[in-house]
Amino acid sequence: MKIGIVGLGLIGGSLAIDLRSQGHKIYGVSRQLKTCQIALEKGIADYASPEFKILAETEIVFICTPIATIASTIKQLIPYINPKTIITDVGSVKQPIVAECSQLWSNFIGGHPMAGTTQSGIDAAVANLFTGAAYVFTPTDQSKPENIAKLTAIASELSAIPYVCDAQIHDRAVSWISHLPVMVSASLIKACLTEEPDTFKLAQILASSGFRDTSRVGGGNAELGVMIAKYNQQELLRSLLQYRQNLDEIIALIQQEDWQSLEQTLQITSAARPKFLN
Amino acid sequence: MKIGIVGLGLIGGSLAIDLRSQGHKIYGVSRQLKTCQIALEKGIADYASPEFKILAETEIVFICTPIATIASTIKQLIPYINPKTIITDVGSVKQPIVAECSQLWSNFIGGHPMAGTTQSGIDAAVANLFTGAAYVFTPTDQSKPENIAKLTAIASELSAIPYVCDAQIHDRAVSWISHLPVMVSASLIKACLTEEPDTFKLAQILASSGFRDTSRVGGGNAELGVMIAKYNQQELLRSLLQYRQNLDEIIALIQQEDWQSLEQTLQITSAARPKFLN
Repeated sequence: MKIGIVGLGLIGGSLAIDLRSQGHKIYGVSRQLKTCQIALEKGIADYASPEFKILAETEIVFICTPIATIASTIKQLIPYINPKTIITDVGSVKQPIVAECSQLWSNFIGGHPMAGTTQSGIDAAVANLFTGAAYVFTPTDQSKPENIAKLTAIASELSAIPYVCDAQIHDRAVSWISHLPVMVSASLIKACLTEEPDTFKLAQILASSGFRDTSRVGGGNAELGVMIAKYNQQELLRSLLQYRQNLDEIIALIQQEDWQSLEQTLQITSAARPKFLN
Repeated sequence: MKIGIVGLGLIGGSLAIDLRSQGHKIYGVSRQLKTCQIALEKGIADYASPEFKILAETEIVFICTPIATIASTIKQLIPYINPKTIITDVGSVKQPIVAECSQLWSNFIGGHPMAGTTQSGIDAAVANLFTGAAYVFTPTDQSKPENIAKLTAIASELSAIPYVCDAQIHDRAVSWISHLPVMVSASLIKACLTEEPDTFKLAQILASSGFRDTSRVGGGNAELGVMIAKYNQQELLRSLLQYRQNLDEIIALIQQEDWQSLEQTLQITSAARPKFLN
């Protein structure tokens, strides 16, 4: 199959590597000429150019740009491609993207491969990045079943596990397990910074694995954190407000010295956590 | 030196192993006769018995029982030991223990070796558990300098790093980096459990390293979580209320769509986190 990939960073580049190794012809597009050269030199893509016209004969195009530029990229791409071409994206939020891009292109289906590393750019692209990872697709009622089938087949070729669901369910689910934890964790670090110097210094010295783990995602990339909040605002606020209510309940149990109910709560969380770990 | 260890679990047993390997004579006390037998068989202690009288000639006694029984253990121990014997404990909270035990024994100095594993009991005891770990001592104004010096020397023999500070500073510091994270993390798991089945199921499937790390300490031992809350109630509430304020600030920024301030906040937390990782 002729497959186009727009945006040759970590995700786009890694998709290109695995799909090319499956025998597909890869047409890569990057604004940066240097990135195109690297893609060709490293054998990541068969063809690479800053020009959308090289995508004219592709059957599927993956838009692997940052969330903020997905729709504008599709607008630029449209004049060059066949009306039957499937366009999909790899953004970590789906509702706003699907709403906008489905209007632009009837064969658009949103996608989210749940894989990544802390690196970025084409030099971070690796083989087998998606092995065992969930790959969610969020079609609408208007999406053609054969398009969905083509995309889930591609996910399976990547050794990823395809899931098909509504964009809102995706955004709610990722808010709970990915976006809410960022804000919960960032609030923890921020709260510690209010402590007076002597105690703060000791806290830094004594911090070990518990703090390291709980603070990890709150100490990550700030720009990405803002993207999450901006594009998944409603679902994130919904989960944040629910979280605050559960936090308030725990605070109340400690204030009331209701140790029995606190123990029950912690037994529930202790029993529930393994169900999230595959 | 003749050293007594009351409570031969993970911490007591591991202390015994390392101190014995430094050439000290180890006198172990456990209520369980079987634990005493294991301690002798494995060479963890030189002498082991359920009877406090074997501690008659010890210079230092480590109380390694659960927090709730430290003071009552000291009361039982007092009739058998020399008035000059230093008593120390290994509890993870210091203010209430120091307040009560200093009244019982003038040569009591609170201690907290910040090491552990997820295991417990004498079979979990290992050599070098304290290597590189912080070992905090919390003397009072009445504590004798030579007693403090003896304990910090013991910590150094364990290859731990001794810190001497006020019990309140200790309890505040551990609340920030150890006790608050438990409640923050437990609230996250509890909040997720409120979601309706379809979304909850997808959330469980999609959860990966971010959720795994942020939820780890909230999915731990419930009994230990209650102990923390019970014995460090005031400092934990202080940090919880500060945390809630910081959480509310982040919620407000997202509600107000103040992305610039949110990015500044996340830049601050991103820059601050490495200072907690040694």
